Amino acid sequence: MSTCTAAATDLPQHLPALDWITDPSRVARLSQDFAWFSPVLKRELSGKVGEVVVRPRTEDEIRQVVALCARESVPITVRGSGTGNYGQCTPLAGGVVLDLSAYNGFLWCRGAVGRAQAGIRLAEFDERCRPLGHELRWLPSTFRSATLGGLFGGGFGGAGSINYGPLAAPGNVLGVRVMTVEPEPQVLELRGPDAMLLHHTYGTNGIVLELEVALAPATPWTECLVEFDDYGAALQLATEFGAAPGLLKKEVCFLGAPIADYFTALAEHLTPGAHVVLLVLAPEAEAALQAMASRLGGRLCYRKSADEVAASHRTLLEYTWNHTTLHALKVDKGLTYIQTGFDPQRFQAQVLALEAALAGEVLMHLEFLRTKEGAFTCSGLQIIRYTTEARLNEIMQIYRDHGVFINNPHVYVVEDGKQAGQLAPGVLAMKQRFDPQGLLNPGKLRSWAPA
Amino acid sequence: MSTCTAAATDLPQHLPALDWITDPSRVARLSQDFAWFSPVLKRELSGKVGEVVVRPRTEDEIRQVVALCARESVPITVRGSGTGNYGQCTPLAGGVVLDLSAYNGFLWCRGAVGRAQAGIRLAEFDERCRPLGHELRWLPSTFRSATLGGLFGGGFGGAGSINYGPLAAPGNVLGVRVMTVEPEPQVLELRGPDAMLLHHTYGTNGIVLELEVALAPATPWTECLVEFDDYGAALQLATEFGAAPGLLKKEVCFLGAPIADYFTALAEHLTPGAHVVLLVLAPEAEAALQAMASRLGGRLCYRKSADEVAASHRTLLEYTWNHTTLHALKVDKGLTYIQTGFDPQRFQAQVLALEAALAGEVLMHLEFLRTKEGAFTCSGLQIIRYTTEARLNEIMQIYRDHGVFINNPHVYVVEDGKQAGQLAPGVLAMKQRFDPQGLLNPGKLRSWAPA
Repeated sequence: MSTCTAAATDLPQHLPALDWITDPSRVARLSQDFAWFSPVLKRELSGKVGEVVVRPRTEDEIRQVVALCARESVPITVRGSGTGNYGQCTPLAGGVVLDLSAYNGFLWCRGAVGRAQAGIRLAEFDERCRPLGHELRWLPSTFRSATLGGLFGGGFGGAGSINYGPLAAPGNVLGVRVMTVEPEPQVLELRGPDAMLLHHTYGTNGIVLELEVALAPATPWTECLVEFDDYGAALQLATEFGAAPGLLKKEVCFLGAPIADYFTALAEHLTPGAHVVLLVLAPEAEAALQAMASRLGGRLCYRKSADEVAASHRTLLEYTWNHTTLHALKVDKGLTYIQTGFDPQRFQAQVLALEAALAGEVLMHLEFLRTKEGAFTCSGLQIIRYTTEARLNEIMQIYRDHGVFINNPHVYVVEDGKQAGQLAPGVLAMKQRFDPQGLLNPGKLRSWAPA
Repeated sequence: MSTCTAAATDLPQHLPALDWITDPSRVARLSQDFAWFSPVLKRELSGKVGEVVVRPRTEDEIRQVVALCARESVPITVRGSGTGNYGQCTPLAGGVVLDLSAYNGFLWCRGAVGRAQAGIRLAEFDERCRPLGHELRWLPSTFRSATLGGLFGGGFGGAGSINYGPLAAPGNVLGVRVMTVEPEPQVLELRGPDAMLLHHTYGTNGIVLELEVALAPATPWTECLVEFDDYGAALQLATEFGAAPGLLKKEVCFLGAPIADYFTALAEHLTPGAHVVLLVLAPEAEAALQAMASRLGGRLCYRKSADEVAASHRTLLEYTWNHTTLHALKVDKGLTYIQTGFDPQRFQAQVLALEAALAGEVLMHLEFLRTKEGAFTCSGLQIIRYTTEARLNEIMQIYRDHGVFINNPHVYVVEDGKQAGQLAPGVLAMKQRFDPQGLLNPGKLRSWAPA
């Protein structure tokens, strides 16, 4: 790990042609993401800031910064738009924040494959592909600002994962171009499984410059809300519609009461206290949805065609995934959340048992998806009425006791998150290869030290 | 059931403008399908022929025939191209064969929905949709000649069912236009679940005139064969690739040795005695297939791009589903087959146990797919070295004893096939509504009699 960071604030003078940000309040802001969703991370990451931010526009500018940092042993923390939740872009040991948001070119789309620079916003990528008949396979709810590199570095997937699984599923990310952190930086292309060794490591084992991803067919998605008085019926609709192979969809989200009550901008469409299923589906699946909803006692209370969605500049996708928590937090600062993975064989039973055990304290928000291996299931981003860290941990343990997997979103070290305690040898080998001096956000990886 | 069929051969003179076929050998041929795959059906259906065939070109011509038959109480058996396997188009009580193959217009394609007359060949439908960016969701191996109406009347699905499930999954067939068999025939549009009450009833409960189906995005499919020395490794590739949500495919077919040895036209590509996985996949999934095959010890021994497939006018799809059996039968007339449905929870274990129990006598041919509810599994069209009917039944019982579902392809009565002994009340209500005189191939339904 680097021990010399004194030089960070001197760097701008060595590379005066680059776009540096030195104003402390801006640097502090660019050292943050949405980790404040977690009262634990908010406390743990408090005061962790970079010393200076640089916003390169070309690969050559990136190379100049990286070479200089490697020579001067200055830590580098890579960031995109800062929409992550685990302090992905928060420097634990100061140094330079390498903001890639200006390195954002769309490179090409050939067949159902697209390639862009890491800093491209997902919305921009999607807009570039759409006229060619394609769209991104996954959109996190933060797609308007989130970058492709940021999603790869610390994201999971999002809307579309119900079809294509998480970003980590084979065949989604086809290749990445990566720069080493060395006095003479090298640039390599990694393909397929090799590329995935840099996924979800928060930019700690290589600087990802470009990403090549497989695309989905562009579809004019309809957006719907179906509300229910009955919890089990709502869960059944989400499950049945979500799993149905002939009903094309991009998103199925279950919101147990009273979560939807936090969606103040949608209040005119919703009955207070209702359980709500949010769906983004193909127009040809609408008749079946209506039939299914009416059979299960649901009320279709909101419907916008793709044209209406486009014209309104509002999308229900911004009520799903992490945005669900965000809307709730806007109304009640005393909330936080957890991330959970249910068992494909018995997720309905697990949900009902946990609702019975924790109703009122844990608000059930489920996202339906396919696992990396293709099994249909749901993951949860349950909203918690926060009392103490001890109780938060207790709730997570109750989930585990029901056979539900916990991705703890209240930790910031890579190994403590979904890597579940230890990194694969291939991930550590990438670290050694791409960051032999250990300059990429030192402290974020626990199980590696420079030789 | 009709008791008066004497008038059938007199019908042409009442409607001389229509295209009638009266030559007995042609009538006999048009009274047959591929039921000869089954030695049992071959015997049972022997000598069952219509008296006359009519090939209407318009709805009005169909109406004239149907009205006349209803007035004269002449049985009607609807047929398409005769690619079925259960005597769907074989008249059990003589009468008129209503050949819809000339009623074959493509009507329209709007968004991802297409509509055509029942007699359209699936290949023609696909060719009409492709320039608009769409294709059929399922292609049986008989797609070159099989009709859309025939697929709906007695088919299952085919290539593509790995994505969209069987044709019967909600959202695949959106609506049908149906004619009643009455002296004054009525025409109605049935949508969604109502339409599906006419599915897989072999044309016995209504004359389907037009079908409206949801479409898939057109994709330039690559065709591959991967061969293995190891049975379990081949099964694993088929399972893993088939289930992988990020790897787009249209077809995954497992062919245990020595099935592929029957494919004489592919012999130059295959090692005799190899276990073979046949895949039709998107180009962007090829790198992952190669990596997976090489990890599992498989050899990619055949690869054709979509352009090469189109130029060659040969497709591996014509080695899958029922065509697998056809190729084997061309080489060895002593073979027959069964149709089986494996348990999504344990299909690999079932396959391995049944292979251990019946190797040599039962040749394992599996088609990977999603069930109507969306579970990933495989179905089998196992090839059997036929000895006696008793042994054939014994083999099916051994399969059942392993928890595998049998769709017996050696029966021709609707209730004995996949309807599993009894028809849903809705299906019988449709019969009453659309064929109150019971003229549609009398004998094919057992559990309904005219009031």
